[in-house]
Amino acid sequence: MERVDFSRVEITGGFFKQKQDMVRNVTAKAVYDRFCDTNRFDAFKLDKNGVEPHVFWDSDVAKWVEGVAYLTSKKREAELEKIVDDLVLEIEKNQLECGYFNLHYVFTGKEHFVNRDHHELYCLGHFIEAGVAYYLATGKRKLLDLMIKYVDYVEKRFVTLKDTGFTTPGHEEIELALIRLYEVTKDERHLKLSQFFVDERGKKREDPKDYWCGGEYNQSHKGVREQDTAEGHSVRATYLYCAMADLAKKTGDVSLLNACKALFDSIAGKRMYITGSIGSSNQSESFTLDYDLPNLTAYTETCASIGLVLFAHRMLLLENDSKYADVIERAIYNGIMSGISLDGKGFYYTNPQELIPVLRERNHCVYENREYFPEPQRREVFECSCCPPNMVRFIPSIANLIYTTEGNTIYVHQFMESKAKLEIDGQSVEIEQKTNYPFDSKIEITVKGNANVCVRVPEWCDTVKAEENGYNSYKIEGSGVICLDYEMTPYLVEANPKVTDGCGKCAIMKGPLVYCMEEIDNGKYLRDITIPVNCQFKQGYDCDLDLPTIELGAYRRKPTDKLYQRLRGNYTEITAKLIPYFAILNRGVGEMQIWHNIK
Amino acid sequence: MERVDFSRVEITGGFFKQKQDMVRNVTAKAVYDRFCDTNRFDAFKLDKNGVEPHVFWDSDVAKWVEGVAYLTSKKREAELEKIVDDLVLEIEKNQLECGYFNLHYVFTGKEHFVNRDHHELYCLGHFIEAGVAYYLATGKRKLLDLMIKYVDYVEKRFVTLKDTGFTTPGHEEIELALIRLYEVTKDERHLKLSQFFVDERGKKREDPKDYWCGGEYNQSHKGVREQDTAEGHSVRATYLYCAMADLAKKTGDVSLLNACKALFDSIAGKRMYITGSIGSSNQSESFTLDYDLPNLTAYTETCASIGLVLFAHRMLLLENDSKYADVIERAIYNGIMSGISLDGKGFYYTNPQELIPVLRERNHCVYENREYFPEPQRREVFECSCCPPNMVRFIPSIANLIYTTEGNTIYVHQFMESKAKLEIDGQSVEIEQKTNYPFDSKIEITVKGNANVCVRVPEWCDTVKAEENGYNSYKIEGSGVICLDYEMTPYLVEANPKVTDGCGKCAIMKGPLVYCMEEIDNGKYLRDITIPVNCQFKQGYDCDLDLPTIELGAYRRKPTDKLYQRLRGNYTEITAKLIPYFAILNRGVGEMQIWHNIK
Repeated sequence: MERVDFSRVEITGGFFKQKQDMVRNVTAKAVYDRFCDTNRFDAFKLDKNGVEPHVFWDSDVAKWVEGVAYLTSKKREAELEKIVDDLVLEIEKNQLECGYFNLHYVFTGKEHFVNRDHHELYCLGHFIEAGVAYYLATGKRKLLDLMIKYVDYVEKRFVTLKDTGFTTPGHEEIELALIRLYEVTKDERHLKLSQFFVDERGKKREDPKDYWCGGEYNQSHKGVREQDTAEGHSVRATYLYCAMADLAKKTGDVSLLNACKALFDSIAGKRMYITGSIGSSNQSESFTLDYDLPNLTAYTETCASIGLVLFAHRMLLLENDSKYADVIERAIYNGIMSGISLDGKGFYYTNPQELIPVLRERNHCVYENREYFPEPQRREVFECSCCPPNMVRFIPSIANLIYTTEGNTIYVHQFMESKAKLEIDGQSVEIEQKTNYPFDSKIEITVKGNANVCVRVPEWCDTVKAEENGYNSYKIEGSGVICLDYEMTPYLVEANPKVTDGCGKCAIMKGPLVYCMEEIDNGKYLRDITIPVNCQFKQGYDCDLDLPTIELGAYRRKPTDKLYQRLRGNYTEITAKLIPYFAILNRGVGEMQIWHNIK
Repeated sequence: MERVDFSRVEITGGFFKQKQDMVRNVTAKAVYDRFCDTNRFDAFKLDKNGVEPHVFWDSDVAKWVEGVAYLTSKKREAELEKIVDDLVLEIEKNQLECGYFNLHYVFTGKEHFVNRDHHELYCLGHFIEAGVAYYLATGKRKLLDLMIKYVDYVEKRFVTLKDTGFTTPGHEEIELALIRLYEVTKDERHLKLSQFFVDERGKKREDPKDYWCGGEYNQSHKGVREQDTAEGHSVRATYLYCAMADLAKKTGDVSLLNACKALFDSIAGKRMYITGSIGSSNQSESFTLDYDLPNLTAYTETCASIGLVLFAHRMLLLENDSKYADVIERAIYNGIMSGISLDGKGFYYTNPQELIPVLRERNHCVYENREYFPEPQRREVFECSCCPPNMVRFIPSIANLIYTTEGNTIYVHQFMESKAKLEIDGQSVEIEQKTNYPFDSKIEITVKGNANVCVRVPEWCDTVKAEENGYNSYKIEGSGVICLDYEMTPYLVEANPKVTDGCGKCAIMKGPLVYCMEEIDNGKYLRDITIPVNCQFKQGYDCDLDLPTIELGAYRRKPTDKLYQRLRGNYTEITAKLIPYFAILNRGVGEMQIWHNIK
């Protein structure tokens, strides 16, 4: 299976067109402004009198640059390009003779490659991706060349001299970046270096005494081919799995492929929230145990869901199974898009699975603020601000996820109003989608050319059966139109009985969208709302959000002064209102709930 | 209202007779043996080559001595008395010239009264209680006199010289102990010193930078009369409230009384588990917020429930309201008695409100074991082993809780098979209870003498109405028999809608007993069991536990491999078996659940 780069696909309308326009018109500049406020751009001047840069600042800016490259590849953005060009000049000026470049280390003059958890190679990885993207978008090679020089230095230190304080980086990213670099340079050394970092991981326990530098936290508990459960920091994990999948694809390494399959199933089958979010614990921002998906204390970072999508997309290139595209769909419409506010300026680093803001006050009563509950409001920038620029690069390149091809077959994985021109079997085929997905169930796919078109039947759809691996195929000769209707009526979802927090509860979805309740619509104490299993759904609309809503008849108990009392069954009928989960926390602080009591 | 000391009451049969026999025959010796194993008794030799004693070891042993005194007051225990007498000789030998005595400080030679959190006055308090009890039980004054000498030194340092590093102790206990001392010595200085420590608390912020030494953690956030919500470490809190209630009683201080009423209502109305357990958070072992009663992570130490009972008992002497006796009943049959195993040798320090043992493995995945879930098994001794000896003193003196008197009225607060000889209005009255409470609803109270007998109608009872303040009164002239039947059929209980973890759930009680499910009877994944609100209860019996059980028809979902799926309503009918909560974890490790999903 071959990937279809977003450069060949134009999103022309609908949900993601609106999001792409928002990133272009608002988010890119807003993130830049906040990064300026917080010295992230000035830091590249490496003024010794300036603020000491944090070890991961390079990566924040690099992801932003990558995002600008994607925007500019579709339509030039002179102002943003100027910022990048100026930045690249600063990098060129401050890159060390040997090729090394890292804001924190160049600023402080500390010894390179000693602390495994200090993100040097992670930062390089993101600048490689930025360099590749900027080159492909603009033809400007300077950033790419600077990073190639840095990669040469890394290879010398880690592979040739082996004189570094660790063998593989504490935060993965460079592994997948080197493969992207290889795709542009065709230099086998870049592929080999990626392989080196992947193969060496977990072979020996590095820094066994330091939690942050060894073991499961950064997937170093065993060799990558022996790993079959998703462990540790969930962003690091998914970035590693991306590289493993890439290498399996490039090299045909079956043991890597099998590890990737097991790791994907571990996540999607046992360790993923209904929103496509991952990372059950804020402690270590990590995966925990099978079916351990606590709602109130979920960490579920935006970057982790993005990492999961990047991994799932790579798996689609290795195995013809709609389960990968289903996970992508689940994440992009829920746990990723919840990471950015509707106005494009506010972000969630962690995407709450349940919010009861008052519980955060528990920390006033206890030592060291050790009780974790997610913040009940969005922020424009974070101290560790990886998620906002990740959105700046993810949304403009989201069309990557729509198609793959294999021989004369086009796989349609995602439904977005778009036009694409693909090359299959040496022929040009045009494919156009008309749809208001995910709000409307109708999809019209117009194909011009000869092709076998395999269209995914979403996992949630129970009115259309799939022929094979979750896809239905349509043979198009000359031209043709495929009209689909994956009927969308709201439905109740249950979690596996082993999911502690899902028992006795249900979630409400419509199509791929998870819906949730917010306090602003339903009052406080959302936990006390009970939904009858045979509830009647009514379509609604919220003017402030400009989004469809779901209304249904539900129950609340009457207030009482008693702490405990004989069960009275003293219910009040109410109309509960649910909004799409991705739109949470756009209307102030309050409770939020995905899983509701049923009876 | 006057208290009726347990010395006047003989428990002759039933539930607590069995517990008292167990403490006499098993527990007292078992706790002693474990304390010997852990050097707690040898420590009193203060051998400089021995193990350094912990700052709270004195109190562990003192509570055990107090328990031995209570046992011996009913029937001499030569062997145990010998241990106490030897111990007292060691204390006499090692008490400093000035009167000071504390294992840790005498052993280390550190400066006294510098660290507010180091339990010196807490330890003294427990040894005062032990000295008083041992004197009253045996007539032997030595321990009492040694402690009086120590109290003189404390008064000199804290009140006269004011040269100590703190004004009031970090862990309350001495306040209530000094009042017990005053009751024996009639020395006003002892009452005044108690008053001093109570009055000074919270007047100024001691050690504002040290969490453990100031603020809410040890009820020092404001003057005690301004406190109206129960805050901080729940054992410390209730011990303080005991002294406040005692002082209100002794001095008629209305502002103290009002604070006590508010604090009691704060606990019983908003911050108490259904088991009468308190302390919602293991972080700081503390109260948290109104209605914040998480089950999985509850701390709910045995000592805290004992403290709550001691406080409620004192409130009964101040205000004629059955709510205090109701809380006592709730705690003694549930959250306190769960603290000791059925064989009398195993203990719970924290009494779980829900157990899912697998979740403890979350800590293998995260940094610093920061996720707290209670241990799923009992221990014979703890590093901080305050709870086991607290049971050794609490159970033998539990008859304190049965009666109070006022003029010629006898209040019957608790129902235990027992005989008592009371003095009211200068007359002797005999009162005898025959009952198998809490397993049987019938209570026969035989009174010989003239008295007005006010019998509590338990809060849970819905077949008998109470005339006034929760009591029904019976006028007895010469003699009479009061026959009661507080019909006991199992019933479902709901928590206030504001209790997050109670929503959509119910507990099952019968009489005052909370029942729960254990994994050994119902399999894993207890959370997935759903109880119909109209379930039929069946009385059962467990031979291993030798206890009644409740059986009822319930539902479980069928297993599935899916992590999420459309709600199937795919239920299997099961018979759920519940055991009395106090008998948890007597049959190995496993899940335990009090609150069940309902539909």
